[in-house]
Amino acid sequence: VHALVTDLLAGSTRAAARVMRAVDDRLPGYETLLEQVFPHTGTAAVIGITGSPGAGKSTLVDRLIDRFRLRGKVGVVAIDPTSPFSSGAILGDRIRMQRHFGDADVFIRSLATRGALGGLSRAAADTARVLEAWGAGVVLLETVGVGQDEIDVSRVAASNVVVTTPGLGDDIQAIKAGILECADVFVVNKADRDGADVTVRDLEAMLALGQSVTETRRGHAPALPLETKAPEPELWRVPVLKTIATRDEGLDAVLDALDAHRSWLATTAEGARRLRARIEHELVSQLSAGLIYDALSELSQAIRDSVTAIQEKRSDPYCARRELAAAFEARRRIDPLGE
Amino acid sequence: VHALVTDLLAGSTRAAARVMRAVDDRLPGYETLLEQVFPHTGTAAVIGITGSPGAGKSTLVDRLIDRFRLRGKVGVVAIDPTSPFSSGAILGDRIRMQRHFGDADVFIRSLATRGALGGLSRAAADTARVLEAWGAGVVLLETVGVGQDEIDVSRVAASNVVVTTPGLGDDIQAIKAGILECADVFVVNKADRDGADVTVRDLEAMLALGQSVTETRRGHAPALPLETKAPEPELWRVPVLKTIATRDEGLDAVLDALDAHRSWLATTAEGARRLRARIEHELVSQLSAGLIYDALSELSQAIRDSVTAIQEKRSDPYCARRELAAAFEARRRIDPLGE
Repeated sequence: VHALVTDLLAGSTRAAARVMRAVDDRLPGYETLLEQVFPHTGTAAVIGITGSPGAGKSTLVDRLIDRFRLRGKVGVVAIDPTSPFSSGAILGDRIRMQRHFGDADVFIRSLATRGALGGLSRAAADTARVLEAWGAGVVLLETVGVGQDEIDVSRVAASNVVVTTPGLGDDIQAIKAGILECADVFVVNKADRDGADVTVRDLEAMLALGQSVTETRRGHAPALPLETKAPEPELWRVPVLKTIATRDEGLDAVLDALDAHRSWLATTAEGARRLRARIEHELVSQLSAGLIYDALSELSQAIRDSVTAIQEKRSDPYCARRELAAAFEARRRIDPLGE
Repeated sequence: VHALVTDLLAGSTRAAARVMRAVDDRLPGYETLLEQVFPHTGTAAVIGITGSPGAGKSTLVDRLIDRFRLRGKVGVVAIDPTSPFSSGAILGDRIRMQRHFGDADVFIRSLATRGALGGLSRAAADTARVLEAWGAGVVLLETVGVGQDEIDVSRVAASNVVVTTPGLGDDIQAIKAGILECADVFVVNKADRDGADVTVRDLEAMLALGQSVTETRRGHAPALPLETKAPEPELWRVPVLKTIATRDEGLDAVLDALDAHRSWLATTAEGARRLRARIEHELVSQLSAGLIYDALSELSQAIRDSVTAIQEKRSDPYCARRELAAAFEARRRIDPLGE
C-alpha cells in the first residue's frame, strides 16, 4: 500500500489533499491510489444536495454540516458549474460555508465541472471515496441547478435532497423529471415566505402524480440494454419538508429524513437494488467514455472526411454513420491488437 | 425515390406527417426515407429558441411565426421535456401557438425528449430536415429550459435565441456556460417590467466577460479528440434585444438580428467552421450512441458480474473497467464478425 494511502487512512488531511490532487491531475499511479482506497469505502452516507441558486442551499448545507459534525468528520464536494459567468456569484454564495474552513474535521473540496464523457460524476465519485477513506462518515455532494450535470452527480449519491423555495412556481415547472425522480427528500426553504404551504402541496401533488404516470411515459429511443424495468419495490415516500435555514429551523427533520432514507436503503430489497444500480451506472458510464474516446481517436481522419462528404452532399449522416461504424470494426479485424 | 418522399417534396402535409411518424417509430425503411430527404435540405434557416418557462417564449415564438409566415412555409419543432409533471403546464403554454394549427403552411410538431444517447438531438435534426423537404424556409426548434437537452438541441440549430425576462437574476445566474455560449441572439422579453435595462446591461457584461475568460476555463478531463480549439474568428457580437411579445413590440429587431446572423454564417470563415462543427457533432454523437449500444449489449452479462464483484469487494470500479474494455476487444478478436 502506498504511503500516501496509509496516511490518508490514518486521517491525514494533508494526505487527503495530495491524493485528490493526484487524481485530479491524473498523475502517474493515480488509479493505483484509487484502487487501494476503494476497499475502505462504501459505508459513509453520500448525500447529494441540489437546487436553484437563490434557494438558500448554501445556508442549508452549512446548517447540515453543523449537525453532521457532531457525529464525526464531514466531507463536502462543492461542484461549480463550468460557467465563467456565474462562478463569481456562486463562489460568493459559498462564503457562507466558509467558517467551516477553519475546522480540521470538515474537508471542503471544490470541483469544476468536467464537461463531456462522465468526467464530473467520475470526479465526484472518486473524491467522495477519498473523503470517506480520510474518515468522513458523511459526504455532501453539493450541486447548483437541475440540469444534466446535477442528475449525473445525483447518481453518485445514495440519498438526494432537492431544495426549492415558495413562489418559485416557474422553478418547479422547470424541474426536470430526472431530478424529481432522483429526489429522496424535498426541502422547501425560506418557509416563512408567502405560499410555502402551496409549494409543499404542489410538490406533493407532483410526486403523487409522478408515481402513477411514470410508467406511461413516452419515448421510442432504444433504452440502454442494461436498464431493465424493476418490479414495484417497497416504496420510499419522498417527504416534503419546510425549513428556514437562516433561523436554523426545520433542519432536524431533514436530518431525520436522511437517516430514515439511509436505513430504508440498508434494509429493503429496493435499497439493495439502488446500490447495485449506482455501481452499474458508474461502471457503464466510465466504460462508455473510454470506448468513445478510443473510437474517436482512431477514426478522427475518417470522421473529418465524412464531414466533408456530407457538406458536399456526396454522403449523408445516415450512410456516413454506418460506414464509420464498419470502419471501426474493420480496423480491429485487420489489426487485432488495435495498435 | 419512395413515393412518400416524392409527395413530401411536392409539399404534402400528409406525407410530411407520415414520414415523421415512420422516423419516430423507426418503421422498416425509415433510414432510406431520411437518406432520400437529405439531399433536399441544408438551405432552410434552422433557429433554436430556448429560455425558462415564464419568460414568455411561446408568445414570442407565436409572433415570430407571424413574421416568418410572410416569407413562406414555417416548421416548428416543439420539444417537450420528458417530465410527466411539467408536461401539462408546458402544453398549456403551447396553446398560445394554437391559432397557427389552422394554417396549412405552418407545421407544428411536438417531440418528447428521448433521454439518453443523443436521441433528442437526432430526432430534432431529422424532423427539421423533413420540415425543410416539405417546404419550410424556416424551422424553429423550441425548447424549454437551459439544461443539457437544450444544449444538445441548440447544436442542431444554425442560430440560437435565448429568451429571459427582467428580474430573473437567479435565472441568469443559473444560465450555464453551454447555453450562454450557444446564444447568438439574447432577448429580454417583458421589457416593460422594472429592471429591463439592468438585465440587458448584466447580459452584455456577462457576454463581454465570457469572451475573455472562456480561454482560461478549468477542467482536466480529456476533451473529445475532435474538439480542437479554433483560432480567433471573425466574431459575431451577440445582440441583447428588448421585446414585449404580448404587445408585439421589438420583434422586427429580433428578425433583423436573425437575418444578420444568417448572412454572417454564410459569408465568414467562422460561419463555415460552425456549419462543419454542426455536421461533425451530429455524426460523432450518433456514432458514439451506436457504439455504446453495441458494447453494452455484448457485455451485459460481464457487466452484471463485475457489479457483483465490486459489491462484494472482490473488484473495484477501476480494475473492472479495464477488464471489461479488454473483454470487448477480445471478443472482437476471437469472433471478428462480431456475431
